[in-house]
Parts: sequence; C-alpha cells; structure tokens
Amino acid sequence: MTDVHVLVLAGGAGTRFWPASRAAMPKQLLPLSGTAPMIAETLRRVRPLLRSADHAWIATGTSLVSATREVVPEVSPQRYLVEPAARNTAPCIAWAAASVARIDPDAVVVVLPSDQHVADEEEFLLVVERAVLSARKGLITTIGIKPTRPETGFGYVEVGEADGTAHRGIRFVEKPDRVTAEKLVESGRFLWNAGMFVFRAKDMVDAVRTHLPQVGDAIAKFDAAAAKGEESAVVAEIFPSLPGVSIDVGVMEKVASFAVVPGDFGWSDVGSWESAWELASKDDIGNHGPEGTVFAAAQRNHVVDLRTDATEKKRVVALVGVDDLCVIETDDATLIVPRERAQDVRLAVEALKQAGRTERL
Amino acid sequence: MTDVHVLVLAGGAGTRFWPASRAAMPKQLLPLSGTAPMIAETLRRVRPLLRSADHAWIATGTSLVSATREVVPEVSPQRYLVEPAARNTAPCIAWAAASVARIDPDAVVVVLPSDQHVADEEEFLLVVERAVLSARKGLITTIGIKPTRPETGFGYVEVGEADGTAHRGIRFVEKPDRVTAEKLVESGRFLWNAGMFVFRAKDMVDAVRTHLPQVGDAIAKFDAAAAKGEESAVVAEIFPSLPGVSIDVGVMEKVASFAVVPGDFGWSDVGSWESAWELASKDDIGNHGPEGTVFAAAQRNHVVDLRTDATEKKRVVALVGVDDLCVIETDDATLIVPRERAQDVRLAVEALKQAGRTERL
Repeated sequence: MTDVHVLVLAGGAGTRFWPASRAAMPKQLLPLSGTAPMIAETLRRVRPLLRSADHAWIATGTSLVSATREVVPEVSPQRYLVEPAARNTAPCIAWAAASVARIDPDAVVVVLPSDQHVADEEEFLLVVERAVLSARKGLITTIGIKPTRPETGFGYVEVGEADGTAHRGIRFVEKPDRVTAEKLVESGRFLWNAGMFVFRAKDMVDAVRTHLPQVGDAIAKFDAAAAKGEESAVVAEIFPSLPGVSIDVGVMEKVASFAVVPGDFGWSDVGSWESAWELASKDDIGNHGPEGTVFAAAQRNHVVDLRTDATEKKRVVALVGVDDLCVIETDDATLIVPRERAQDVRLAVEALKQAGRTERL
Repeated sequence: MTDVHVLVLAGGAGTRFWPASRAAMPKQLLPLSGTAPMIAETLRRVRPLLRSADHAWIATGTSLVSATREVVPEVSPQRYLVEPAARNTAPCIAWAAASVARIDPDAVVVVLPSDQHVADEEEFLLVVERAVLSARKGLITTIGIKPTRPETGFGYVEVGEADGTAHRGIRFVEKPDRVTAEKLVESGRFLWNAGMFVFRAKDMVDAVRTHLPQVGDAIAKFDAAAAKGEESAVVAEIFPSLPGVSIDVGVMEKVASFAVVPGDFGWSDVGSWESAWELASKDDIGNHGPEGTVFAAAQRNHVVDLRTDATEKKRVVALVGVDDLCVIETDDATLIVPRERAQDVRLAVEALKQAGRTERL
C-alpha cells in the first residue's frame, strides 16, 4: 500500500476573529476550538494516517512561515510550500501534488484546511480512510459534510449513488442564496463542500495539466527546477503569475468524474466567535472563560484571553450582569460584541482601517 | 474677618468603582468626574476661599497618605490629620476643629467630602460663602442639596424658615425607604445631607465636648500633647478607642440649633459608574471613552481606561453592537457591566473576595 501524505492549507487570513486573529496571526494559528492552535489540532488528528512526520506538508504564505513553524515545530521546513503570493487553492494544491509525485506518484494526498474543528475524531479518521481507498482507485475524492442547516456561507456538492467506500460525485454548487440552500438541504442529495480533497498525486497532476494548463506548465517547471535544487527561485518567479483559482472551480467542476465520501463527525469551520463559543467548554450556565474569570449574574458569555505577558495573564476579567457577550482580550486590543452579532467584528476592523490604525489589524 | 479653613474628608474606601478604585486607590484619588482626581478638584474648587494653601487640611487613613500626597502635593504634610483607624466622621472632624482652634478658635472650618462633583462652581462658592457667614454667627451650618429624585441612598435634612443667609435647621433624617423618600422630596422641606458642614472651630469643639464627651476628652488630650510636640503618639494611642460615630448622629442631631444653606449647583456624589457616565463628556450618540476607542453600532457606553503603562495605553478597546455598557480597564482587571446595573459591581468584588483574590481588591 502506498503512503498517505497530508497537505494542510494554512495560508488563510481573515478578520472574523479580530482582535485574536491578525494579518500576522490568522485563525489557524490560534487555539479557537481547543487548547492547541487549530493547525496543530488538524495535524494531530491525521497523524495516525501518516507513516512519519515527514509525510505532513504545509502550504502557507511567506509572511506566515515563522509564526506557523512556532506552533507546529514537528513539520519539517522541507515540507513547507511557501506561496510567494496568495493564488487561491488550485496552484498550491497542484504544487503539492507535484511535490509528492516526485517522491511517489502513487502516494495519496489528503488536503485539509487548517482551521476546522472535528468533534468525533475517530469517525473523522474512518471517513478519511474511506476517501483514501476511493482515491487509490484513481478518483479525486472530496469529503462532503452532512449539512445541519441551510448554510449560505458554504458551497455544496451533489452526491450520486454509492460506489465502494464512496459515492459518485455529481456536481459542485457555489455558495447558494437562502432559498436555494434550503432546497439543497431538503433534497438530501447535497453535502457541504468543506474543502477536503483526497487524491493520488499523479491523478491531481494529470487533472491540473488537463484543466489548468498554465498551472500544469508551472508545476512542470517546478519539477525541473527541483531536480537542480533551484525550486524556490523558480517558484518565486512563476507562482505570482498563476491564476488565483480554487481547486473546486479550476479542477473539480471540470473533471469527468470524482467521488464523494459523506462525513458526519461534528464538523465546524469555526467561522465566528459565536461558533467558537458553541465549541468551547462551558460552565453550567453557559459561560466560557479562562480560570479566574468572574461571572456575576452573567450567562452564556465567551471570554478569551490571549495576552502573552505572564503578568498580564493574571489580569482578572469580570462580567457583571451581562449575557451572551464575547469579550476578547489580546496584548493590544479588547473586543466586546454580543455573540449573536459576532459577524459584526468586521465593523471594528473597518473602523480601525478608516482610522489608519493598521498596526492593530 | 477671621480665616476660613477647609477640611477635606478623604478616608473613604468603597467598592462601587472597582476595578478603578481599590483599597489602596479609593474613589477620591481617581479622576472620575473630570481630568483630575476628585480630591484635587475638591481642593481646587474651594481655593478662592482660603487665604493660603496652609488653610487646607486633609483627613485620611494611614494607608492612604502617600497616595493622597501624590495627587494633591500642594497640601502641607503638617495639614494631614492621619487617622490611625477609621472611626467615622465625628472623631476626625472634632480633631480638625481642635487643630484649627489652636491656630484661631474663631476661624471657620468648611468640611467637605473629597469625592463629590460640582457642575456650577461659581454657585457652589456663593453657597459656601453663605454658610461661612452663618457659621460666623455661631451656628453649625450644613449645606443641603436640593433633591432631584427620591433618593434612598442619602440622608435628608429638614429646613425651617430663612434666617439671614441661611435657614433654620429642623432635623436630620437618616437614609429613608422609598416611600418615605418620596414624601420627603414632595414636601419641599427636605434637602439631601451631602456631608458638608461649616462652623467656627470653637463651636464644634464645644458641641463635641457637650454631646460626645469621650471625643471631647480625647481632643483635649490631643491639644495638650500637641503643645509638647507629642500629638501623633497620643493620637495613635487614643484615636482607635474612640466611638465610630458620624458627625450627623453624634453632634448635629443633638445640638440645640443649627443652620442649613440650600445648595443647587449641579451636585453629584458620583456614586457609581452610571453617574460617572452621566457627568462625563460624551459624543453625540452618548459614548464616553478615551481617544481611539472604537464604537461600532454602539451607543451610550462608558469606557474608562486607567492603565498606567504607556504602551498599554495604546491598546484599543472596540465595542461592537453593544449599548449602555460600562467597560473599565485597569492594569490588572477588566470590568464589563451594564450602566443600569453599575451598583452590582459589588457582585464582582464579592466573588473575588470569596475566591481569596484580595490582591485585586
């Protein structure tokens, strides 16, 4: 049986977790759903599938490499695919597929976002193993999440009849409007596209050559350069010129066939402070916060303290007579927002941008 | 005309302004209603009445002397009446009266709490001058505040017919229940007892000798000791044995006659974060906060940042989608409480006490 590699996509930025997340400290580097940074949780979860730590790859941007290495020091520097510019997922997954193919074209690559939460890790591993079996048959396979609500923030994937450990994939649907989302969920035939893809290295390389020839040419050049020890120079030159296209649109929607493995393992994309609260450990009146937080006549609040200074850590946060609030403390910012308005964090980010206070972003 | 002295009562502790106020940094040392600490504002306001800075006295507790001297360095160390133990207002006012009487028994003493706000300072001075004129006639005179609501947190004083610049005082009423408070206010004959007393030094000494003989004996001993340069040793010995009684109960309710000068000068005892917000400068949607505070879809909030570290000062506080909240930041604590529940700050204080975290109190 050929080896399994994992590629963790860790180039994401975003403002939904301000002030915890910053340009230099995005969501995946923060312990938003547990005690370890989300990327560390992601790697830990798939560790049983990998023959060695050397089978874990991380794709991220230049500016995030050192912060990422600090939180997942076990990943070899040689396994970082450092994107000189953000070009969405297709170019970097293609590059990863080519890189693994150089080692073993039959090896299976499991692509995982770095910032998702999984409640049932055992079930998650079973699902990934089913997808690996499907991929070994030569099918690019995606893991679709059983929807729990008519979410308009995700894309969907339509599932056909069962075929071994997987199902035939019918089509990808981009983020729908509310009415469409309700129909998709009611039909029972659509799963959430959670950005998880499993394939043999050579199959993805072939698909990219066919459907994204510019990217296919680029990875051929990367291969040639790698053979001469000049890969990073060539990547620096060519990568920024590649189209910024997602693997869904650039490859998956075009391939003749693909497979889907349905997954139901307590998945969450941890999209806001509200969903972080939902996943967090809470006392019996719904409060989450570090030890020593004072909750007086206060319920269902979410207190996060990410201050790095040891003495600062001893600062007490006291909530009196407030319910359903998120209170986020960092070294240089405090955010207070109702849980149900967590998505409005962007308003604070916009205000700081307008005030030119980009050092806070 | 004899001189006017002022005695500022600055021994107060209290928890209503936690986390800004602490055992070692009580309300009067904080800039709760303006830019300067309240005790500094109190002294500044009466300065026009005093012939020199040497006419200002401060009564406070041993543990507060150095912090107090830092915020009002203009008051001479010789003018501190350092109470070795808290014994309410009568013993310390008696001691102050005796101390001023040693200099000039006919001098007038204006006793003022250190933690009150006055909006109309000109009117305030006029009222105090009326009280001084009344005191010069040998009447212990109190300044009564025209009530604006049926407050149950203050005592009241009943006012009789006008007599020169003052009115005859009828009686003091301790903090009433709600129904009684409403009746008192409706009657139009009752003013709030704001703890402001004006008298000739010798008159208060006489009244104390008559109505609080134990305290009268003590101040006679202080006088004798002072003549030998041994006052502080004798105070340390005797003061803690004195009864802890207020000047209202111990003297004012017992004297044959007293005077009241009604005052209407935008007085506030600044009793909670709510009243601090009422007095604070606000933007046009009712938010108060330091420069740079982000208010996004947020109204009528009160943000106070008392952190001492210069870099910490640059921490941004962002309120998104919350109204009518108080957010108080200090070096070692953050408090979040709705304005209308500001009095429940005590719940946080109690929780910290129960947790044994007295270093935060």
